[in-house]
Amino acid sequence: MHRDEIPTPALLLDVDRFERNLARMAAHVRKAGKNLRPHAKTHRCPEIAKRQIAAGALGVACAKLGEAEVMAAAGVRGLLITTEVVPPASIRRLMKLIGDAPDTMLVVDHPDNVRALGRAAAEAGVTLNVLVDIHVGARRTGVEPGAPAVALGRLVAEQRALRLRGLQGYAGQCAHVMGWTERGDASRRAMAPLMETRTQFEKAGLPVEIVAGGSTGTYDIDVELPGLTELQSGSYCVMDLDYRQVGGRAGSALTDFEMAITVVATVVSVAADRAMVDAGLKAFSTDKPFPPEAVERPGVTYGFAGDEHGRLTITDPSRPPGLGERIEFFPPHCDPTFNLYDRVWVVKGADVIGTWEIAARGRSD
Amino acid sequence: MHRDEIPTPALLLDVDRFERNLARMAAHVRKAGKNLRPHAKTHRCPEIAKRQIAAGALGVACAKLGEAEVMAAAGVRGLLITTEVVPPASIRRLMKLIGDAPDTMLVVDHPDNVRALGRAAAEAGVTLNVLVDIHVGARRTGVEPGAPAVALGRLVAEQRALRLRGLQGYAGQCAHVMGWTERGDASRRAMAPLMETRTQFEKAGLPVEIVAGGSTGTYDIDVELPGLTELQSGSYCVMDLDYRQVGGRAGSALTDFEMAITVVATVVSVAADRAMVDAGLKAFSTDKPFPPEAVERPGVTYGFAGDEHGRLTITDPSRPPGLGERIEFFPPHCDPTFNLYDRVWVVKGADVIGTWEIAARGRSD
Repeated sequence: MHRDEIPTPALLLDVDRFERNLARMAAHVRKAGKNLRPHAKTHRCPEIAKRQIAAGALGVACAKLGEAEVMAAAGVRGLLITTEVVPPASIRRLMKLIGDAPDTMLVVDHPDNVRALGRAAAEAGVTLNVLVDIHVGARRTGVEPGAPAVALGRLVAEQRALRLRGLQGYAGQCAHVMGWTERGDASRRAMAPLMETRTQFEKAGLPVEIVAGGSTGTYDIDVELPGLTELQSGSYCVMDLDYRQVGGRAGSALTDFEMAITVVATVVSVAADRAMVDAGLKAFSTDKPFPPEAVERPGVTYGFAGDEHGRLTITDPSRPPGLGERIEFFPPHCDPTFNLYDRVWVVKGADVIGTWEIAARGRSD
Repeated sequence: MHRDEIPTPALLLDVDRFERNLARMAAHVRKAGKNLRPHAKTHRCPEIAKRQIAAGALGVACAKLGEAEVMAAAGVRGLLITTEVVPPASIRRLMKLIGDAPDTMLVVDHPDNVRALGRAAAEAGVTLNVLVDIHVGARRTGVEPGAPAVALGRLVAEQRALRLRGLQGYAGQCAHVMGWTERGDASRRAMAPLMETRTQFEKAGLPVEIVAGGSTGTYDIDVELPGLTELQSGSYCVMDLDYRQVGGRAGSALTDFEMAITVVATVVSVAADRAMVDAGLKAFSTDKPFPPEAVERPGVTYGFAGDEHGRLTITDPSRPPGLGERIEFFPPHCDPTFNLYDRVWVVKGADVIGTWEIAARGRSD
């Protein structure tokens, strides 16, 4: 099948670019002496997770229990659930998951939750691997670093069915700081309390076998931290406009990883001053303040025009879009764009070599 | 099952509010002497479409061929596809759909597409019902009103396998004009060329059995147009924050229809100045410039905080959110929020009475 036969709109993955991204990250962490547990919330696709693991990753991080359930059912192991699992019914699901995939880890940030997990794991007769989630300034989840974290770590260690493995700290506020130098400064400031907490855990005799964190934006910054053991970068495998623009060590764009996904659309209506494609806000995520970008198709700029339409403004009148013309676009943000599609079409040059199910799409539960 | 047992985040539909919305719209169009073919792009849910039809609708409008395929497979008839179907492979799928659901209608706005459809329908041995899509200022699809529209109508009438049924004009730019009076002025201005084109079609001897248009914002404005035969309002069945704020005939909020869907989330992390819920930008659409709103839960305001997190800012310190607390939110925009979920949980008071599959979710192709 030729890539031009894919029904539009559709999500495409360039397998050569993708595999080069996996190889580059694998070489990077190996050289740095770190591990990689990439965030599967980026793609929610078991096949991608398996290829990341085949390239050397320990497993994958999952944003939610539902995502982890899908990954485990597909045979993916080495899972870390990075959002606290709180409702009693969810804890029951978690115990079943641990039965199926015993090495699955979970983060915690509250004593009530630690006790509830400890009771549930004991009742289920399983051992639950736990990281203490440290708040490193993102104003999201996590216990405060230092003494509150140590107290929570002690509480984890006291639960006989919980096994404390270490710490996680995700400094989401740093991931997209513009400019590599500025981002490095921000990340070192944010991660310092995590490193200090690691030292306090060691002094308290608490295990810190694992200290996890980092994003695609800080992949070559956080590995300089001696106390960090594993990176959680996710977007590196496919990239997006948002991460490209934050800049890299080498310049004003982050080009260390290649743009490996596109959304292909078809021109379905033409007029003197515009052309409409069949991809709107159900085909691209809308959470970033900039639109999709046409790939190797000069003369047009994309604007959202409703659920199902994108409006191409014609900037080069010598090359107006034709009715039926297919145009590919880089999405602004990869994670929520993957989450709009049931499958990704895998292309190698002009050929479609398969489709991979985005099996955990919609599994935010 | 109690509504508090639904795994979060989840999309809920209050069936009493929903049924009252259907009854109100049905009474409204009946009194106005108009028909209703509500837009199913709002919900992508065959069960909702069937209930709209049971309440008197002629059928449903579908934004895309893929959506219509799902509706037809579920037994829904009276379909109108409101985006032009252009690629040859899509036209082949359309012919199969017409074989299964012969009364399906399609809009056209370009002579090349009219000829391609005419050839395909003739080869398939089917009759394709067609409306001419008129550009009424939304700068989206549609042929220009007046002479260009009449010329396209004549071309449709010349294709022996096409059956011209009339006109469609969607003035999307009017749907959300703030204030009922201002919106009425805008819609009458926008729709005047459609009405004039209707007159020109009549003079040219072209059929205008159907003239379709209108939104939830103009549901009680466009019915005053003598030349309009059917309304396409979609959001009325469940409503959202965006439509509520545009104002109605009676006041500064559009309260003619009830807010019938919510997203339920759980507090998974608490801190002194904030609480985090497990619903972020994969649980709510992000295309509107305002956030979800907590329902009957004063003391907190929601802000997006990533793929899987919403940050509750505590505005009433006397009532901080508790770990594990469940909170429901009105979504900013119903259509793309439905498109994030595989099913909607149907609730009646405290009870879950079932789930309805959002079977056309993701079917923008």
